[in-house]
Amino acid sequence: SKLLENAVEQMASLPGVGRKTALRLVLHLLQRKPEDVHKFSTAFARLKDQIKKCQTCGSLSDHEFCHICADNKRDRSLVCVVEDIRDVMAIEQTQQYRGLYHVLGGIISPMDGIGPDNLNIESLVSRLKTEEIKEAIIAIKATMEGETTAFYLFRKLSPFNITISTLSRGLAVGDELEYTDEVTLGRSILQRQPFDDKTIAR
Amino acid sequence: SKLLENAVEQMASLPGVGRKTALRLVLHLLQRKPEDVHKFSTAFARLKDQIKKCQTCGSLSDHEFCHICADNKRDRSLVCVVEDIRDVMAIEQTQQYRGLYHVLGGIISPMDGIGPDNLNIESLVSRLKTEEIKEAIIAIKATMEGETTAFYLFRKLSPFNITISTLSRGLAVGDELEYTDEVTLGRSILQRQPFDDKTIAR
Repeated sequence: SKLLENAVEQMASLPGVGRKTALRLVLHLLQRKPEDVHKFSTAFARLKDQIKKCQTCGSLSDHEFCHICADNKRDRSLVCVVEDIRDVMAIEQTQQYRGLYHVLGGIISPMDGIGPDNLNIESLVSRLKTEEIKEAIIAIKATMEGETTAFYLFRKLSPFNITISTLSRGLAVGDELEYTDEVTLGRSILQRQPFDDKTIAR
Repeated sequence: SKLLENAVEQMASLPGVGRKTALRLVLHLLQRKPEDVHKFSTAFARLKDQIKKCQTCGSLSDHEFCHICADNKRDRSLVCVVEDIRDVMAIEQTQQYRGLYHVLGGIISPMDGIGPDNLNIESLVSRLKTEEIKEAIIAIKATMEGETTAFYLFRKLSPFNITISTLSRGLAVGDELEYTDEVTLGRSILQRQPFDDKTIAR
């Protein structure tokens, strides 16, 4: 069946979905009600055309500006620089951050042909020029590419009269010392914190 | 973003796809070209409306009859009874079978509320009455539900003057004796085959 073949091919084009899984998913869709399959299809039909990038932070939004940039209650002196929108969601879920974001749309990765010019770095620089930002938090993953990107950003943002900070590294909550890698444990000791209510709060 | 939320929800409605994976897949789609996303969407839009069940064997097809049932070169005295279309594909890929198929559309599973009446069993019975079938091969998985279904079919098909056979059980090609479960190995010994060219061919 060509229709089936085509649907399987499209499903298998998703990352991490092989042909066998794709077939299983498509056959599952076929067992659903027609209106459910229609809903499934239209969810993606409108997606690319109608979803926008927030003109300030580069996050995804239904409007010109995302709900965080548009929110007057957020602390506009803080900007948290992240790789993509999933990181925004992860940080929002902690409920510990009330500042703004800046979404790079990736990290520097020469292996994948992604250089600084492919990322939303220039728009960050112009935000620092026009907005009243006092601190930029570089919240990028602790891999080699991540560290490279963080260092590049650090050099790019240094000329501005702002505080540049990064996520603390250390023992994860719930982790045991003996199973924590030595680099992380070493940083935990070097960057030890005063033992007070705040440290043990949550 | 409501559009994003909706797309993620639809993606997460697929079996085995959690919300995190769904988000990753949707963000991947968003990075593609608009026409690619359009292709993705339309592949599923037409699927449910236009795909048909083969009126003979119950397999999926773009036409009234599937390409196997419509193929005059197939051996019409043989029918292989399988659970679903994936099994048809698996058997076709062996290139060892030139007969017809009959797709049950599931197996008997009281836990999931699936009884014999929910499966394409009556249509198989009427095929045996009208077509010139000499042998029915019951090719259903070797789980408890599978065996139950096979036994039900065996009773249902016994009144007909045909040979009823099932897949041989035994040591998988490439498997070691010591890691094969004892039931399988036991059957391999009981159902031992004459050692000739055919046995060791592939």
